[in-house]
Amino acid sequence: MTAPPHDTRTTGNARTLPDTQQGMRRRNLARVMHTVSSDGPLSRASIASHIGLTRAAVSSLVDELVRWDLLEELGPERPSRVGRPGSALAVSGRGPAGLGAEIGVDHLAVCAVDLQGVVRAQAVRRGSNRARSPRSVARELIRLTREVTVTAEKEGLWISGLAVAVPGLVARDGRTVVRAPNLGWHDVDLGGLLPEGVPVTVDNEANFGALAELWLGAGTPGDFLHVSAEIGIGAAIVVNGQLLRGTRGFAGELGHVPVRPDGPACPCGGRGCLEQYAGEEAVLRAAGMEPREDVVGVLAERAEAGDEAVREALDQAGQALGIALTGAVNLLDPDTVVLGGALAALSPWLLPSLQVELRGRTAGPACPVAVSELGPQGPLLGAAHSAVRAVLDDPATVAERS
Amino acid sequence: MTAPPHDTRTTGNARTLPDTQQGMRRRNLARVMHTVSSDGPLSRASIASHIGLTRAAVSSLVDELVRWDLLEELGPERPSRVGRPGSALAVSGRGPAGLGAEIGVDHLAVCAVDLQGVVRAQAVRRGSNRARSPRSVARELIRLTREVTVTAEKEGLWISGLAVAVPGLVARDGRTVVRAPNLGWHDVDLGGLLPEGVPVTVDNEANFGALAELWLGAGTPGDFLHVSAEIGIGAAIVVNGQLLRGTRGFAGELGHVPVRPDGPACPCGGRGCLEQYAGEEAVLRAAGMEPREDVVGVLAERAEAGDEAVREALDQAGQALGIALTGAVNLLDPDTVVLGGALAALSPWLLPSLQVELRGRTAGPACPVAVSELGPQGPLLGAAHSAVRAVLDDPATVAERS
Repeated sequence: MTAPPHDTRTTGNARTLPDTQQGMRRRNLARVMHTVSSDGPLSRASIASHIGLTRAAVSSLVDELVRWDLLEELGPERPSRVGRPGSALAVSGRGPAGLGAEIGVDHLAVCAVDLQGVVRAQAVRRGSNRARSPRSVARELIRLTREVTVTAEKEGLWISGLAVAVPGLVARDGRTVVRAPNLGWHDVDLGGLLPEGVPVTVDNEANFGALAELWLGAGTPGDFLHVSAEIGIGAAIVVNGQLLRGTRGFAGELGHVPVRPDGPACPCGGRGCLEQYAGEEAVLRAAGMEPREDVVGVLAERAEAGDEAVREALDQAGQALGIALTGAVNLLDPDTVVLGGALAALSPWLLPSLQVELRGRTAGPACPVAVSELGPQGPLLGAAHSAVRAVLDDPATVAERS
Repeated sequence: MTAPPHDTRTTGNARTLPDTQQGMRRRNLARVMHTVSSDGPLSRASIASHIGLTRAAVSSLVDELVRWDLLEELGPERPSRVGRPGSALAVSGRGPAGLGAEIGVDHLAVCAVDLQGVVRAQAVRRGSNRARSPRSVARELIRLTREVTVTAEKEGLWISGLAVAVPGLVARDGRTVVRAPNLGWHDVDLGGLLPEGVPVTVDNEANFGALAELWLGAGTPGDFLHVSAEIGIGAAIVVNGQLLRGTRGFAGELGHVPVRPDGPACPCGGRGCLEQYAGEEAVLRAAGMEPREDVVGVLAERAEAGDEAVREALDQAGQALGIALTGAVNLLDPDTVVLGGALAALSPWLLPSLQVELRGRTAGPACPVAVSELGPQGPLLGAAHSAVRAVLDDPATVAERS
């Protein structure tokens, strides 16, 4: 559950800084932060050899990062190597922290994660958000963020950014929820309903789930397709350690890939979409069950207990997933397919038929399928870590704001 | 047919240069080249304002590029602006040139393109390559490259790189043809059969076709899905002006996306793949025709003449394309789908049913479909221009070699 070694990839800002002396310094500050974050504690000399700069250049960068409360000195390294021992540096457990939030169909959650990646405060409220106005949901979310912020501040942290996961399509502006059918939201400027004064990002929960997998999953490669499900089925495509978002921000709509082109009509306008075979409602219907709360838990329980109707329904869902994934794998050639969210809990009954399709439809070795260990925690953790990584990617912005 | 204005995107090397003073200078040399290439002729002052560096910094970069024969001075600009007129700079029509080559199933072609993007020499040989060994094909290709090189050298050019388009899957090493079924090639180290001393890149023809569209197409966006067909059906995915290659280099296999999961068996191991409905062989079969040369020309001619069997076969192919593209568009959210290669010539008879599927299966506005103006010339031009862009992306490598 730790980041892969030498993962000094940056996630956004640092890449687009201008190519001037000042821009170069900002990028190198980011390199130092990422290196210490993934491989620390490290001495100045080790950092220098990791990133290919001189010891003197690194010392100047490190001094600044220590002054900004982003790195801390741990005292002398044990003298196991040649030469005078240097002081080891670690990412600070004080200073800025990222706030992650999740608006689920049946819950709200907020957590604060420090630069070391540790969850330092958390708050959850259960209860349906289906019939509520965006303003009312945002108000309650703000209350939860205040609660978490107060706890974090008591521990010497301050909030550097807020990232919110929503179960719907988000425009590329990172604030407008274009469509969240299970909340009944259309074109909601969620960013405008949230507090000013701290940078806010809104993104699809499948995207944050995939980022959590990338950053926190054990041995997750830089190229994968992350498939998750709650009510609908969503996917997120990660290429070279970056999310593929699509022109409008709508990429990853695996749930509307046609599986059987003459199949049942789908609210999206299509016919025979994956969601008509593997979405929650479709699986419940196939198992002869009524709509209810905690669908996934109940399905897993009954399948475990040997309920034939449920097992058959999940087997059919797995087959449809396998057909849709064959198309996705042919198009994207990912290293791995990762089943996350609700699909992780149901994977024992989905995987056999899914694999039969994927393997049977592929010449040569089929794309491996892994099951996420983060499961339903993924989106919230991904959101909080994205706020943390915004600091690692451009530490100088923190100096401007702290 | 010109590059979009202000397109100073680099295509590879420049992004990964180390972040040191020297690396910064190399990246800024690339910025100057790309700026003059897309918007020139330009004065030093205009270049400076385009890329956000000082006039003095730009002068030093320009002097070097002129010394290396990459830029040329056109003499004083017309005094239409305020201040002392500067000398206008243009990309040189001498110096390095890129060599593009195409190994088709029924032809070989080579061309040389200078830094201005002008084709300066070309050679083509018709004749089937189906039953020939890779070594024999490579020998003939080398003869054609020599012929083109001699012509180019007479005009003051020298060859800075060679890029070869092949009708098959190429490994990410950029030299090994993993699978080219219509040539009968498996795991052929084509790079090893080509001349040493000049950088050689091998890539799939669909990828080079998409790059040609990106670089030379009128108003092509930075995010699109390029679909082309010869014997099989291939696609290339362009995201943010970059090819999405996939983990093994196999991304874009649209031809093997399942359209009807219980359809006819496909040599890939699957059933009901797009190629079983819209590949050349499938269309010929549906039209009741025998295998033959110049399939596309004959199909277009007969459809034009009102042959009902051919029109019906193309209509069915368009429908299958529309179903497969619905899945691809849902996954990738591209700005546009571009039909290139043979599909461009057949588009009048494919598009109606293709659009019915794509529009009917999408809630909201469907992804626009455009037809490439480059058609079958795309892969060869894309290959040559990729060799040219390697120079624009890192001009300093040319200085090391010239």
